[in-house]
Amino acid sequence: MSELRRNLATDEWIIIAGERAKRPKDFARGEAARQAVPQHDPACPFCLGNEDKTPAERLRIDRDGAWQVRVIPNKFPALAWEGRDLSAAERHRDDWRTWMHGVGDHEVIIESPRHDLSPATMSADDLTRVITAYRTRYLDLDANPQNELIIIFRNHGSKAGTSLIHPHSQLIATPVVPSHVRRRVATGMAHFDETGHCVYCDLMRWEIGDGVRVVAENEGFVAFCPYASSVPFEVWIVPRRHDASFGDIQPDEAAGFADILHRMLARMATVLSDPDYNYVIHTAPQHSGAVPYYHWHLQILPRLSTRAGFEIGSGMSINTTPPEAAAEDLRGEASK
Amino acid sequence: MSELRRNLATDEWIIIAGERAKRPKDFARGEAARQAVPQHDPACPFCLGNEDKTPAERLRIDRDGAWQVRVIPNKFPALAWEGRDLSAAERHRDDWRTWMHGVGDHEVIIESPRHDLSPATMSADDLTRVITAYRTRYLDLDANPQNELIIIFRNHGSKAGTSLIHPHSQLIATPVVPSHVRRRVATGMAHFDETGHCVYCDLMRWEIGDGVRVVAENEGFVAFCPYASSVPFEVWIVPRRHDASFGDIQPDEAAGFADILHRMLARMATVLSDPDYNYVIHTAPQHSGAVPYYHWHLQILPRLSTRAGFEIGSGMSINTTPPEAAAEDLRGEASK
Repeated sequence: MSELRRNLATDEWIIIAGERAKRPKDFARGEAARQAVPQHDPACPFCLGNEDKTPAERLRIDRDGAWQVRVIPNKFPALAWEGRDLSAAERHRDDWRTWMHGVGDHEVIIESPRHDLSPATMSADDLTRVITAYRTRYLDLDANPQNELIIIFRNHGSKAGTSLIHPHSQLIATPVVPSHVRRRVATGMAHFDETGHCVYCDLMRWEIGDGVRVVAENEGFVAFCPYASSVPFEVWIVPRRHDASFGDIQPDEAAGFADILHRMLARMATVLSDPDYNYVIHTAPQHSGAVPYYHWHLQILPRLSTRAGFEIGSGMSINTTPPEAAAEDLRGEASK
Repeated sequence: MSELRRNLATDEWIIIAGERAKRPKDFARGEAARQAVPQHDPACPFCLGNEDKTPAERLRIDRDGAWQVRVIPNKFPALAWEGRDLSAAERHRDDWRTWMHGVGDHEVIIESPRHDLSPATMSADDLTRVITAYRTRYLDLDANPQNELIIIFRNHGSKAGTSLIHPHSQLIATPVVPSHVRRRVATGMAHFDETGHCVYCDLMRWEIGDGVRVVAENEGFVAFCPYASSVPFEVWIVPRRHDASFGDIQPDEAAGFADILHRMLARMATVLSDPDYNYVIHTAPQHSGAVPYYHWHLQILPRLSTRAGFEIGSGMSINTTPPEAAAEDLRGEASK
């Protein structure tokens, strides 16, 4: 028998399918596991030695006298300020059309000079430099008052929307606050107004108290499979300290964030055979200030199942792996 | 240069990518085109002669003395009333968990005794019987006051979430109104309160007036690629008469609905080489009555692109094919 669970932070019902709980062995092996990837690909524009094949870098972080992380504008940006000033963010309207120019920023964070690494296989120190790059670019783009929201995300494998193997993340700054994000913030606000608490602080506290869905902890962060996980092996990494915006992460917290993210992705790679996945950093829109009702966090969504007609029509998800079982596998107590 | 467009009915911003508008030849061929499918598969539980391999049918529509459409309960239902009474729809709550039993209905509509057909390749008459089955089952399940929403959908191909080739659609009745649907209705209500019109009636009228995104029309229905289409070649089929619920479709309207749906899917199969796709019928929740601010419609989403981290984080979509170009291709004036 299946069960419906409500996610307090997203305001969504999830169906936890009961008939046949899927464990790691029930899912296809990840794409990356299926192919041998070379350390260096001369044809890859992100590889060492091909720096002149990308747009000029906006940030570079060195290690041992050579670059480890480079941030460049996307060559085919979804949104770009290039050649436009801030007035280009003006909306245009007629009777029924509302539109605006595609202004904003779209950057690629090249995570390593090596072609074959990923956050799961690079060192935690290297991943710390990637997180530092996220923070630096976030703060820089946050200084543009017309960048209303900054989304940092990673697509791993073709099921997650990328065909590019070289390890990279992306950042997109949008000139609007999407209604999806407004609703998340409104849900947090309603919880705050009712309880006086941040819903993410509450969920984190409750999950730690319950324990069965917690996967990892360190001084600054907690990783758990949420009670109402939307997909098999979904993981949230939440900072213990309440901060609305990812821009509030302190330089000395990057290592702790990288540590727990690295452990989670390495565990997933082991337990689920290097699955395709997306991760995304959810953060408050610009101009929100230090609101007590939103809390930045990172969400990892392995792409083990496919969003189909029911999900499109209802906005609900059918999750075939109870998060208690997923957390057990990810903790390693029961992995086979 | 890309452009942002706002969808008035869904309240979402869409990015119409401008750099490289993708046309049909830029997309991979559909999966079904890649394999020869037999007319009959002895191992398929939905094929003629294997009727005893499925649960007992809830509806059967005959043609020429044999069945053409069968509706059966899903063998592995996401939701089921079986063995429970209406009180099982009660919510359970503690401090932070809200959950309920997975009650509801989950049915499979077997669209043809033949293994190799689809709505694009069967006759419009045969598709009319499928639509009649949708309507009959909708009305039957709508009589249960605890079925809050009834979603009818079709998954075509593995990218759309099905590995089953035999032509079939599904119906899921949920014991909750998902917040996603509540928001759609609220968006329609806000438009109605501001303008005195149904937003879908307005959009249909405006699209017909503008013309460039209209793909097909008949007496009862209009098919168009919406101004703010979320994915390449998205199509909406909207009934001209304002009705909030799919249950309001009249028996003699099934043929007109089947006609336009059949033409759309056949055109897509030709132009996009039998793409994987989902379609879903959006309808008002139960107990809504004949509200003037919601309007049932069918949405077709070809699975030509992949939802990635940006879409997950922002709820926005990046659409690489302007709907004006998609409509032109689907009308056939410029297909190559």
